[in-house]
This record gives sequence, structure tokens and C-alpha cells, in this order.
Amino acid sequence: MSQSNMAREVAEIPEAAARFLAASHAAVVDAATALRARDPALVATVARGSSDHAATYLKYAIELQAGIPVASVGPSVASIYHRPLRLAGGACIGISQSGRSPDIVDLMRAASDGGALSIAITNHADSPMADASAHCLALQAGEEKSVAATKTFVNSVLAGLALVAEWRQDDDLRTAVAGLPDALAQAVGMDWSPLSSRLARAASAFVLGRGPGYAIACESALKLKETSGIHAEAYSAAEVLHGPAAIVQASFPVLALGVEDAALPHVVGTAERLAAQGAEVFVTGADAKGATRLPSVPDLHPMVAPLVLIASFYACVEGLARRRGFDPDTPPYLRKVTETV
Amino acid sequence: MSQSNMAREVAEIPEAAARFLAASHAAVVDAATALRARDPALVATVARGSSDHAATYLKYAIELQAGIPVASVGPSVASIYHRPLRLAGGACIGISQSGRSPDIVDLMRAASDGGALSIAITNHADSPMADASAHCLALQAGEEKSVAATKTFVNSVLAGLALVAEWRQDDDLRTAVAGLPDALAQAVGMDWSPLSSRLARAASAFVLGRGPGYAIACESALKLKETSGIHAEAYSAAEVLHGPAAIVQASFPVLALGVEDAALPHVVGTAERLAAQGAEVFVTGADAKGATRLPSVPDLHPMVAPLVLIASFYACVEGLARRRGFDPDTPPYLRKVTETV
Repeated sequence: MSQSNMAREVAEIPEAAARFLAASHAAVVDAATALRARDPALVATVARGSSDHAATYLKYAIELQAGIPVASVGPSVASIYHRPLRLAGGACIGISQSGRSPDIVDLMRAASDGGALSIAITNHADSPMADASAHCLALQAGEEKSVAATKTFVNSVLAGLALVAEWRQDDDLRTAVAGLPDALAQAVGMDWSPLSSRLARAASAFVLGRGPGYAIACESALKLKETSGIHAEAYSAAEVLHGPAAIVQASFPVLALGVEDAALPHVVGTAERLAAQGAEVFVTGADAKGATRLPSVPDLHPMVAPLVLIASFYACVEGLARRRGFDPDTPPYLRKVTETV
Repeated sequence: MSQSNMAREVAEIPEAAARFLAASHAAVVDAATALRARDPALVATVARGSSDHAATYLKYAIELQAGIPVASVGPSVASIYHRPLRLAGGACIGISQSGRSPDIVDLMRAASDGGALSIAITNHADSPMADASAHCLALQAGEEKSVAATKTFVNSVLAGLALVAEWRQDDDLRTAVAGLPDALAQAVGMDWSPLSSRLARAASAFVLGRGPGYAIACESALKLKETSGIHAEAYSAAEVLHGPAAIVQASFPVLALGVEDAALPHVVGTAERLAAQGAEVFVTGADAKGATRLPSVPDLHPMVAPLVLIASFYACVEGLARRRGFDPDTPPYLRKVTETV
């Protein structure tokens, strides 16, 4: 069997990341300089699907690194309800691989017209979303053929992290961002086969994270649905104890995405509690009693570490999809560009 | 078999709503006057579990009625990462039935100290969260014994809607809010047995909504998990087409919560598309080809109509839980007050 597009595109993640850092550096610095001059009281994000998970990651990066609240704006506020939001004095960041879903373009245009500093993050620098925005960070990911976004997701998060590092002139984060191509190359080769062996026979699963790791949990759960037909759902490792844990019975599979940061003891605590309920738990970042530890790249900056995990996950899920009889490139009922209004 | 606490508390929803409107009117007017004076550039919300679904409803109400962006702030930003957010000039609304989860109390105190106008929505006016906030809207819901929140959820949303109506001095919304006890009384008696018959044998389900209806979808999905052991997940009726629809195969149950508003044609469109994929779809608010229509109270203001649906849903799910062999009052592994840090 020939290699899937998804497998090839996952393998390209490190070089696509390096290409973004080289080719888009000037655009990142320009947008960061504009953010520093604006000193926004709030940042709004606009995105759907995998790109919205990149926006969730960026929300935590901005809140934790800059202390500025980030509002995720549903594109429908503009496209269906026709309600202009007051964003003057703020910034609005749109993320879209294609840059052409009409609802997202509408909202970016309304934000620009309303006085917000608008920044488009897209793989298509000539797209309507880029035209509607003052700044564009081109993903430089190259063509992505698989319906399941992989390298464009990684570069969307990378673009956001590079922007935050320059905006805040944070040398630690700049160094961590510059090291991402290497870290991602290590991550793509990590062996997560204990997870795929368990999920080969799963109907449902939870994926847990906290802080920026929650965004990676959301992206992982979506990929399990779209490529492998598993009803996987993402939860904050705190939120899952407020109700959802009720469906975690014997052998329910749980992936707990921990990284070396302040939240790690809490992620481990939740993992151990669910394992004690009978769940079959897989964990990264630390050992947890009753859980299977998956390998991850050690000693990363806590703001980039969750992103690196997704490369190991993507490599795992591509094989899982084939094992479950799906073609990872063409999930049932989906198209590459979903244009919603 | 004696009546469950949940059944009794669902039946009390209309009178609890009327009690809130009578007893908390002065506090609502005070907080609304403060909001009008502040004219916040942004509103932050802080909540977990069902209360966070009430916060999501309030986000749409504020964005659509006032045009002000609303940021949902993860309590962990303060409690784990110890990062103070810049909220001066803004407002911060915390929602918690008990008012004593430490992470939420911490964040409300940090917001107050940082210069935000802080408003607590809680059933316990003497709670630490109320103490940490400049204003408190007491839910007046009476004691809630069932672990599954019902009347406190309804009153949390009601408190938010009453606040927005007074803040914006919106007479249409004031009238709609005043009519809620009657509308909820009708809704509690609606027959949604076609849905419970289907869900009696379900392992997974999707619940869809859009705008404030998305918040009700989130709350409904959580209740199906915690009371009935069903892996139900909420999606925006737009977002579900960006990947999650891949797991919707033959007979997959879907509840599409439509109301008479601008988004209704889109909710119906998604319902029909999933029905054509083979899903077993239940819909409110309009007929949809291939779907089963559930009854709902007609001719409501679009901003209150989704809230009214939850009363019919709660009555349905209480019976469903018993039918599936669960005690609706004491879901497995859960406690009434979950204190997270």
C-alpha cells in the first residue's frame, strides 16, 4: 500500500515549521510591532474546526504570556445575526487554512472596519481573509492534500507563538520557537503504539489537557473522529470531573496530555482518579499510577511543549485510521474546504 | 417508586424563576446601573460545569444584544498559572451554584482587585464568591438536592438575561424575561418521549444548537452523560460539519435545538444533511426533512427561546435516566460541589 497523503504531510511537519520561521519572520515582526504599538485591551479570535483549536492555543499563550483576555468570537455573530462587535482598540486574529470561509472573511472585514488591528493567519496569502486584514502571516506549509489538517495546524499554532514571542520580546519563548523544527522532528518518530493498540477497538474516548494542552486535546479528539470514526471528546482535566467523568466506566480509554508545567500535578491527579474508576489511561509528561506512559520530548518550554505532542499524536492516528479500515486522506462525508455561513 | 429529587426540582423551575424575578430585581437593577456607568470594553466570564454553559448563554446574549466581546476565562489562569489578567475597565461575571470552588473565588477576587466590575451569580449570597465580588445576584432557587443542576441552571441564565435587559434598557427583552415563568411552565409539560425512546438504547449522540442555543446544547449533552451514561457531545450546528460529522453513520442519534431566530434555517439545513447521512434526527422549532419534530413553546423572543427548551429536555432526561437504570439524583462518581484548583 502506498503512503497516504496524511503520512507524508505529517513527515513534512518539521520542514514546514522551519520554512515558516524563515520565510514569514518579517511579517511576524511587523504584526508584533503593530500589536506592541496598539497595546490591545482585548484580543478576539475567529476560526472554525482545527483552526479554532489553534486559536484556543493562542488564547492561552496570550493570556498567560501577556495577561490580556482573549474572546473567541463565533463567526455567526457577524454572518447570521449581523451584529457588529465593538472591537476598536483591540486586536482580531483570524485563522483559516484556506482563508475563504465566507463567515470568517465577513467577521475579519467587520473587525478591520470597526477599528481593530486585524491579523490573518492562513496558508493562502492571496485569500479573501488576507485581503480583509491589515496583516497576514502566511503559513508556508505547502499544499495540504489530506482532508485532515496536520502541518497547517502545527504552523498555525507556530505562527501564533512566534507572534507572541516577538510582541512580548520574550527571549526564552523566541529560543523555544526557534527550536520547534528539531523538537517536532523528534516527536514525529515517537512510538505511541500502546495508544493505537487500545484505540483500534474503541467506540468512545476522552482526551484531556489543561492550559494550552487543552487546545491539543481538542485537536486530537477531532482527528480521532474524522479519521478513525471514534467518538473522542476533549475536556479540560479539571472540567472532566464536573460531570463527564460519569461515563468513564471500566476500560474507557482516556488520553491525558501532560507537559512539564504548573498544571502537570493536576493532570496526573485526574489521570489517577479516572484510572481508579477503571479507565484505561494513557499519559504524557509524567508517570501516573495505573496509567500507561507515552514518550514525549523532554525539557521543552511549557508554552511550546503541548504543540510538540500533536506531531506524535498525528503519526499515531494516521496508522490507527488505516488499522480501523479508513482512508486517512478522505474521511466520510467531509470536504477539505467547508464554507459555512 | 417515589419521585426523584431531580423530577421535583424540574417541576419547581417555573416557581423558582418567578421567585428570582421578584426577590432579586433590586440587585439586578443595581448591577445593571453599574454596567451602564462602566460601559465595559469587554466582559469576562468565570465558571465551570453547568454554570459554564450558563456563561456561554450569557456570552451570546451580551455579544448579540450589546455588541461587546465576551471572553470565557479558564479559572486555571489564576489558580494554577498565577497570571493576573488585565481586566481594568471591563466587567467580570462569575457563575457558581455553590459560590465556593476555590479557583473561581480566586479569579473573582483577582478581577475585583484589578479594577474590573465584578458580579457574582450564585445560589448562596453568603458564599466566598459573593464576598469577593462588588455585586451579587442571588439565584433564589431554593435548596437543590440532586447532583444534576436543573433549577439553578435555569435561574443562572435567567439572572444573566434579566441583567442584560436592564443594562440595555431593552423593553422587548424585559417583557420576554418577565414571561419566562409561564413559558417554562408550559415547557416542563411538553412530551419529548420520541427522543427518550430513541436514547434509551443509545451509546453516543450529538446535540446541536447555534448562538444561545449552542449553550443549551452543551448543557443537554452534559446531562445525558451525567444522568444517563450516554456519550453525548454538543456542537455548533455549523461546526459539526467541520469534521465531527464523520462519525454520524446510520441511526446515530442527533438532537438539533432550533428556535425561531435568524439561525433557524441553518440548524434545519444541518439537521437535514445529517438525516440524509442516515442519522436519526430530532429537531425543535421547525420541520426538517427526515427528522422527528419535538414540541416547543411557540412565539418566544429569540433570546429567551433556547432557555425554555431546557425545561422540556430536563423533564425528558429525568425519565430517560430511570429507564436506563440510573438514579438521576446520584450519578456515578460525582459530588454536588466539585472544588477544583
